[in-house]
Amino acid sequence: MLQIPIIPSLDTSAAKQARLRQGQLTKPAGSLGRLEELSIQIAAIQGTVRPDVSRKAVVVMAGDHGVALEGVSAYPPEVTPQMVLNFVHGGAAINVLARQANAHVSIVDMGVAYDFPPGSGVIDRKIARGTQNMAKGPAMTWQQAEQALTSGMEIAWQEIDRGLDILATGDMGIGNTTPSSAIAIVFTGEPAIRVTGRGTGLDDKGLAAKVAVIEHAIRVNQPDKNDPVDVLAKVGGFEIGGLAGLIIGAASRRVPVVVDGFISTAAALLAVELAPDVRPYLIAAHRSVEIGQRAMLEKIGIEPLMDLNLRLGEGTGAVLAFNLIEAAVLLLNEMATFADAGVSNKE
Amino acid sequence: MLQIPIIPSLDTSAAKQARLRQGQLTKPAGSLGRLEELSIQIAAIQGTVRPDVSRKAVVVMAGDHGVALEGVSAYPPEVTPQMVLNFVHGGAAINVLARQANAHVSIVDMGVAYDFPPGSGVIDRKIARGTQNMAKGPAMTWQQAEQALTSGMEIAWQEIDRGLDILATGDMGIGNTTPSSAIAIVFTGEPAIRVTGRGTGLDDKGLAAKVAVIEHAIRVNQPDKNDPVDVLAKVGGFEIGGLAGLIIGAASRRVPVVVDGFISTAAALLAVELAPDVRPYLIAAHRSVEIGQRAMLEKIGIEPLMDLNLRLGEGTGAVLAFNLIEAAVLLLNEMATFADAGVSNKE
Repeated sequence: MLQIPIIPSLDTSAAKQARLRQGQLTKPAGSLGRLEELSIQIAAIQGTVRPDVSRKAVVVMAGDHGVALEGVSAYPPEVTPQMVLNFVHGGAAINVLARQANAHVSIVDMGVAYDFPPGSGVIDRKIARGTQNMAKGPAMTWQQAEQALTSGMEIAWQEIDRGLDILATGDMGIGNTTPSSAIAIVFTGEPAIRVTGRGTGLDDKGLAAKVAVIEHAIRVNQPDKNDPVDVLAKVGGFEIGGLAGLIIGAASRRVPVVVDGFISTAAALLAVELAPDVRPYLIAAHRSVEIGQRAMLEKIGIEPLMDLNLRLGEGTGAVLAFNLIEAAVLLLNEMATFADAGVSNKE
Repeated sequence: MLQIPIIPSLDTSAAKQARLRQGQLTKPAGSLGRLEELSIQIAAIQGTVRPDVSRKAVVVMAGDHGVALEGVSAYPPEVTPQMVLNFVHGGAAINVLARQANAHVSIVDMGVAYDFPPGSGVIDRKIARGTQNMAKGPAMTWQQAEQALTSGMEIAWQEIDRGLDILATGDMGIGNTTPSSAIAIVFTGEPAIRVTGRGTGLDDKGLAAKVAVIEHAIRVNQPDKNDPVDVLAKVGGFEIGGLAGLIIGAASRRVPVVVDGFISTAAALLAVELAPDVRPYLIAAHRSVEIGQRAMLEKIGIEPLMDLNLRLGEGTGAVLAFNLIEAAVLLLNEMATFADAGVSNKE
């Protein structure tokens, strides 16, 4: 039986103090824009006017998708385990960016259709060797959906127990824009055509076929939008459920979560549908090229920090955003006040 | 007599090699969006498929403005030297961000109405104690305008001689959004109301008065848009001329320049009007809250990387952008190729 932990409310007193301090720092009030808001959000989450985001991690969850059989991706399914091995060997984009950001990388096998040898460096939470094909029936059982969510929470708690100030989400799974679009349709009510994109690079014909597959999967499965576990089970993915659990687990322990692109946003929306109190713990890293992300961000009520035309996933956008968030926190902590610096304030 | 140095053209062969390599790295082609474009631009500027931006600096140029007497700023003019001292003591936003980015900070007095004591850490290039009030006549003489540009180039070359891979521009000067708006009007043809903003925080009445002052200054001075030195002399500022020279100096030595917000963009436009070949060396860091920046960015033909509602200046947005540019370069240099990693490419 799925247990959703209590999500603590934010510390409004710390937020108020941080806002007050922002007004005393040597700059016109508000002139650091979103960096000021970010610093106040992190202060409220961590419950201190001197927040700290120096210990960073990204958790990349991987899974395969039965629906890939329908030809919804430009890449073959064997790329999922190949890229997971690229992650553990340090050669992927997420590794480069995590090294730059001084962030720990954890790679979790939530359900890849390949058995990684012991000692490969992949955290084994495999639920099955890929989901079932959602175009034919549910992607997973109710029990598997609960297991994905629970594993995600446990991974978050393990990361936090090792010492963690901020967490980023990442994904890998050939075909996983398809379940993400399905999740977008169910929770936002948008038609498939409005929330389905080219993924890793479909042409027009491939995109039209993908839309048809998604519409068919929703017709076949009839996911209940009022029951997020039902949605995950019928049209989700193991890594998407894992990331939703990860987000809930982090929020339950007052750790801010930086949400990457399209797949991570689908997971965040699932998390918010399961536990609405996680919302203020979320930071949207970037606006993805995938068109379906926008409606989900609006539904959650978060605005991305960057728009760099990224569409890679892996947590790349989220780890890039670490620098902006750390900048925001450092500014709050280290800038001189008008009084300290002997600078005249506004007339 | 002003000497504009030759600006070398970009290395199209290095750009081509970098583009080719981007297509071999383990990600869908183009999925890193603007980061891929940035890496190719830096490769073309530096003339190598393995570019390097590890040695970074921001040059913050300061100056006072006679037009501040007209009440165009929410802050009193004594804040210019107070903030310059805050910079040298390390307490300002630019110092915090430069420490985070591991960037050297150089502070240049281009024309502050205050005499900094020797040993204060401020680079002395003072042309005069502030410009003249452009609402009454030219802000500076033709000779002073040339001196500002020449000093800027010399500062760039000094920075580069110390060892530098990438340069950011920064400004400080109470009142300096007023000459920047005037420059925008002259070169873009936009009316004052479309390119004049609230600066450090004017109210509606203050904004209307500022628009009137700028319109009046342009009527009085009749700057010639076909002669950038005339524009600088009549409605510019010492730090704006210095930054334009800095940009030209950097480009002449193949160093990429990250352009900060509104004032820096005015300087960049002035630089491009003087020496059109500097354009491909420019990277626009962020979209400023100041509305006049947009028309100037369009005139130059560059698109900002970020939009964080910043309006502080000092080079803050440019130094924040260093991380994205370094990420782009590291990805090009460090990611595994499909062949290296044994990952299958697109079907």
